[in-house]
Amino acid sequence: MQALVDAARCKESVLVAGLDPVPSRLPEELRALPEAEATLKFCLGILEAVEPYVAAVKLQAAFFERLGPAGMGIYADLIGAARNLGLPTIADVKRGDIGPVAAAYAEAHLGLYGATCVTVNPYMGEDAVLPFLEEARRRSGGVFVLLATSNPSSRQVQETTDPPLFEVIAGLVARLGKPSGDYPDAGAVVGATRPEIGDRVRKLLPEALFLSPGYGTQGGDASSVRPLLDHNGGGVLVNSSRTILYAYERSASDYREAAGEAARGARDELRLIGAHL
Amino acid sequence: MQALVDAARCKESVLVAGLDPVPSRLPEELRALPEAEATLKFCLGILEAVEPYVAAVKLQAAFFERLGPAGMGIYADLIGAARNLGLPTIADVKRGDIGPVAAAYAEAHLGLYGATCVTVNPYMGEDAVLPFLEEARRRSGGVFVLLATSNPSSRQVQETTDPPLFEVIAGLVARLGKPSGDYPDAGAVVGATRPEIGDRVRKLLPEALFLSPGYGTQGGDASSVRPLLDHNGGGVLVNSSRTILYAYERSASDYREAAGEAARGARDELRLIGAHL
Repeated sequence: MQALVDAARCKESVLVAGLDPVPSRLPEELRALPEAEATLKFCLGILEAVEPYVAAVKLQAAFFERLGPAGMGIYADLIGAARNLGLPTIADVKRGDIGPVAAAYAEAHLGLYGATCVTVNPYMGEDAVLPFLEEARRRSGGVFVLLATSNPSSRQVQETTDPPLFEVIAGLVARLGKPSGDYPDAGAVVGATRPEIGDRVRKLLPEALFLSPGYGTQGGDASSVRPLLDHNGGGVLVNSSRTILYAYERSASDYREAAGEAARGARDELRLIGAHL
Repeated sequence: MQALVDAARCKESVLVAGLDPVPSRLPEELRALPEAEATLKFCLGILEAVEPYVAAVKLQAAFFERLGPAGMGIYADLIGAARNLGLPTIADVKRGDIGPVAAAYAEAHLGLYGATCVTVNPYMGEDAVLPFLEEARRRSGGVFVLLATSNPSSRQVQETTDPPLFEVIAGLVARLGKPSGDYPDAGAVVGATRPEIGDRVRKLLPEALFLSPGYGTQGGDASSVRPLLDHNGGGVLVNSSRTILYAYERSASDYREAAGEAARGARDELRLIGAHL
């Protein structure tokens, strides 16, 4: 986890750029290429463009998995390319299985593919989280457990019971995390679109590092991140995917230049509200 | 979903054989081979051996993912080989993400790789389930939603709230499934180790098809499947993985022969309690 924290401090940025390469949204100039090649080229261009402004990159595994075995080759290439640029990586896999199965997923994404951190789904309880934490501990990595997500239907599941499920999972995260530098190695995924939930989760996990998606296209803005901050203004990494990747659609610039500009803008907005690690 | 039901009827078997290839448990004779090659060979041997006795095979994606891009090639090969043997496949991926991300996972496993059915994690609500159902509907496939799992720590999450989470998810499954032949296209994963939970879930989902893991090594036996059956003795497919795959460890037979024997025995035990589709 500390590699992520150190990178955020070095860059003075809490922004994470998400790689969600959707083929139909790739720039015109790349669409003539085979899909896998276009995806790799696009993502490499984005990586270099955003590198000065972001603490880390998050790879959305589904968009690589959809390209078959070759897609997983690209996923490996991009994690390697990020490493060469000094960028920690978050494998956004949200895997949720137990025991040796969870251990196999952890070995794949934190070991073989070499991501720094991974996202995990806690539906099956601590059996689904511990194998990832154990693998992360061997590699000074970290785990972000899905807790309160920002999609509309998450409320049906995460908020309709007593106590709400997100509080149960917050308890799990608090119990499983161990100190690993400035933050425990078990962090949480907490959406930035619902301040009242953010506020409650921060009270339950005063020390934890949050990964907050939903910045930009999902309706969150910099001010909605504020309730997630800890008492020092720290404790949050903010992910933005489509707003950065496809910034070129709203601009006359090259996609790389537009992505760089969008990342710089988001980083600056987050600095303005005082977010830092 | 109906392909699975038809296969179970044709074979007079509700047994599903799970492919969970753990390298350290492969037979001696295969261990000298490179890991990916040994895994493929082992699983092909198992497929042919169990084919007469099972309704379908379930592939545990993690064990293929752990082998990198080549592992996903093997995963594709095995789904194809099962199809050639007339065996429907369940991709046990337990993916749990939303919107276009879930759609990409669905396209990967039901489309590109061509599995008949898929398992899904409902932590993020219906946004995480519907894209899989939509893909399944285009292909006459089906979706099994994680509901009440049999691992010890699942209780921490699935049973500690009021109402218990598994009841919330049962409501989601009932609402999202549509008729698709003899069973709705949204089924549920329900462990066979806790009769009181099984009984309750069956009352909430009287029409649904359940996929029940936990038979054999996880402590469940044929009689523990009984509470899951519907009022006709139907509605349940029972998965057994390690008890079949590694039957050779407790026998003097070749691994294929031992697996076939174990599958035949499990099928017969399930027939004895009257389980059928």
